[in-house]
Amino acid sequence: MTDEPRPDDAPNRPLAGTVVLDLTTALAGPYATLLLGGLGATVVKVENPRTGGDSSRNNSPYFGRAGLSVTRAAETDMSVSTMGRSRNKKSITLDLKHERGRETFLRLARNVDIVVENYAAGTADRLGIGYADVRAVNPSIIFTSISGFGADGGSGKAMDSIVQAMSGVMYSAGEPGAEPIRFGLPVGDLLAPLYAVIGTLAAKVQRDRGGVGQHVDVSMLGALTSLLSTEPFDAFARVGLPLRTGNAVPRLAPFGIFPAKDGFIALCGPTDTFARGVFRAMGQPELIDSDRFATRDQRVRHADALHDLVTAWSRTRHRTDAVAALTAEGVPAAEVLEPADALRNPAVLRRGEVVELSHPEHGSTGLMGPGVPIRFSHADARLDQPAPHLGEHTAELLDTIGGLTPEEIAELRRAGVV
Amino acid sequence: MTDEPRPDDAPNRPLAGTVVLDLTTALAGPYATLLLGGLGATVVKVENPRTGGDSSRNNSPYFGRAGLSVTRAAETDMSVSTMGRSRNKKSITLDLKHERGRETFLRLARNVDIVVENYAAGTADRLGIGYADVRAVNPSIIFTSISGFGADGGSGKAMDSIVQAMSGVMYSAGEPGAEPIRFGLPVGDLLAPLYAVIGTLAAKVQRDRGGVGQHVDVSMLGALTSLLSTEPFDAFARVGLPLRTGNAVPRLAPFGIFPAKDGFIALCGPTDTFARGVFRAMGQPELIDSDRFATRDQRVRHADALHDLVTAWSRTRHRTDAVAALTAEGVPAAEVLEPADALRNPAVLRRGEVVELSHPEHGSTGLMGPGVPIRFSHADARLDQPAPHLGEHTAELLDTIGGLTPEEIAELRRAGVV
Repeated sequence: MTDEPRPDDAPNRPLAGTVVLDLTTALAGPYATLLLGGLGATVVKVENPRTGGDSSRNNSPYFGRAGLSVTRAAETDMSVSTMGRSRNKKSITLDLKHERGRETFLRLARNVDIVVENYAAGTADRLGIGYADVRAVNPSIIFTSISGFGADGGSGKAMDSIVQAMSGVMYSAGEPGAEPIRFGLPVGDLLAPLYAVIGTLAAKVQRDRGGVGQHVDVSMLGALTSLLSTEPFDAFARVGLPLRTGNAVPRLAPFGIFPAKDGFIALCGPTDTFARGVFRAMGQPELIDSDRFATRDQRVRHADALHDLVTAWSRTRHRTDAVAALTAEGVPAAEVLEPADALRNPAVLRRGEVVELSHPEHGSTGLMGPGVPIRFSHADARLDQPAPHLGEHTAELLDTIGGLTPEEIAELRRAGVV
Repeated sequence: MTDEPRPDDAPNRPLAGTVVLDLTTALAGPYATLLLGGLGATVVKVENPRTGGDSSRNNSPYFGRAGLSVTRAAETDMSVSTMGRSRNKKSITLDLKHERGRETFLRLARNVDIVVENYAAGTADRLGIGYADVRAVNPSIIFTSISGFGADGGSGKAMDSIVQAMSGVMYSAGEPGAEPIRFGLPVGDLLAPLYAVIGTLAAKVQRDRGGVGQHVDVSMLGALTSLLSTEPFDAFARVGLPLRTGNAVPRLAPFGIFPAKDGFIALCGPTDTFARGVFRAMGQPELIDSDRFATRDQRVRHADALHDLVTAWSRTRHRTDAVAALTAEGVPAAEVLEPADALRNPAVLRRGEVVELSHPEHGSTGLMGPGVPIRFSHADARLDQPAPHLGEHTAELLDTIGGLTPEEIAELRRAGVV
């Protein structure tokens, strides 16, 4: 398969010619295969015909002819989640609990490079479509599993909040002694797919070098906890540095989030040069000569007083004015943006890191979703194919990848397997 | 280079035989090359002899013979940041602002597969060591840049807080109308390296297929904003769903963080089955028949009352007891852990997702840091080499990779270039 680019392959995509069989649902798994699709792999999404496919297809809100609505009004209405997550994928239906569904899956798996799944640990094996089953028909397969606690970690339900709670991140934000804080960005779900893509590509490099196929196993809890451990929180605690410092960081003063007339700004001024710039922007350049603020040690010791002075200045300014004044003095500073504004930052749109979602029939939606936030000088990586409707490519791909005859496909349809 | 494994290569590592020239400093860049090293690449870290190398070497606290301390006491004391981030790397010194440093860099670059840098945008080009310079001597190079706003995004200083502020994530946590919330986990720094590794490996797959080398360009702001855009915050806002809901999520009630006698627990009970389990765990199974809580719609409508009932129960329990009761009823639940406990979760340690850091001379530290949170069935990926001291491998690698003679190396030393 890998040697024969199909007609729809764009050869200058990094993963052109690579075929992925995608068993994922919900968020963590589909984000991994979304990135693989954006990098140019052919992604064949296998969906259950009996349940309406990936659960994301039933996530309100939906987009249709009349725009956005809480309930689905027409057959072609599509959930916003699906419009985002199923781009650059093809959809086939297959009932994997049916013996002939399983057989058909293995016929497809024989001819692909990669399988990705995010069932609860052990489920794929129980269905007879796990790594051992696929390897038996395709020894060079790369079989990537994303689960809550790892392939050997039990089948416990790992929702984003549970993973956040167990990883320690909820105690990384907020004031000392405050309640834990749940992140709205679902980091419990979204880090595992990034490591899963890294593992899948590393395994592909190994295999392309003449190595074997293999199982790649990533846990949501391990991914997030591992990332958290990059900061030396452990060492900080032992030498008496506080882990939680709220929106300011006294040991880097002046540093933090400060109120403006119309919102908030972030500024970072930990060095003498930056501190001097902050004082100049505030119109009080003499503060750098003050006993309290002349050196970094002094500023750290008087961080509260310093941050009160910054606040007294910033709260009388509009965000843009305060940031302009700081930036003019070379101080790292920015407005704190709401997501709706952040997603429309022209700098991010220009680079294709965030893109507009489109509906397969109704086109432009005005809603923003992820692009591939990687720019290649000599390759094309982007999410440019709208999400398919359920089973849109079943017949086509059972033929081209599975090698099934029209009669066999018709028979599977009659049996309700596809 | 790629065809000749060096003696220290473990051939069953996914990236065995791949050589990376690492120009990164601080956090975002070094985390990318840490993962490449953990996956088996040979990582040659280039450090400035005039400044003491990577700024992380001067991040307090330090670890030495006497354990952890705020100040450096001996020559061999090493910062905890470096002990974590420089594992599985080799260190050479090279003054890149010196013309002969630049020449030496290009001699090395001729014989490697990948360069990774996280200078401010434009700096590498100005130093004469940018993509165009390296490509001129090594057309198949993969040259990966991590910057605040992209290679074309200006040289603005992008600290973690600035990127968080601009990305919208600070408004994803907390109560409606509350101040923005800075995450303690530096997501502004740490997402870009994950995409940079994905981009680097995808470019390597493309090149190994007979393609060309190329520039891979990842921005910190784009990486985080893109990840944020995977959640349909945009669509939620337009149909009137609140973006910020604090620690509870009313539309999924019972769902959120609840107080216990000795801390907090997280629980997720959005379905009828889970809600029933929550009520049973609370010893009030009859609540599922109540007018207020029998259906999901009713529970969402009466979310506050429901969450008050859960709180009344949970606050009289120890965390472990509350979680055990919920888990016994099949409800996803967990204790909210502090980082120090989360990093010592036996399940995470067993899988090597978090590992103990060791000092090159003093061994065991009792401090935890990241492992490679990816398990391979037929490969070995781990961070098992302690961080090197500054310039530890200069002579060795100028010889084996750069092909410099002992005389040339001695000459560079005399000139202070290495």
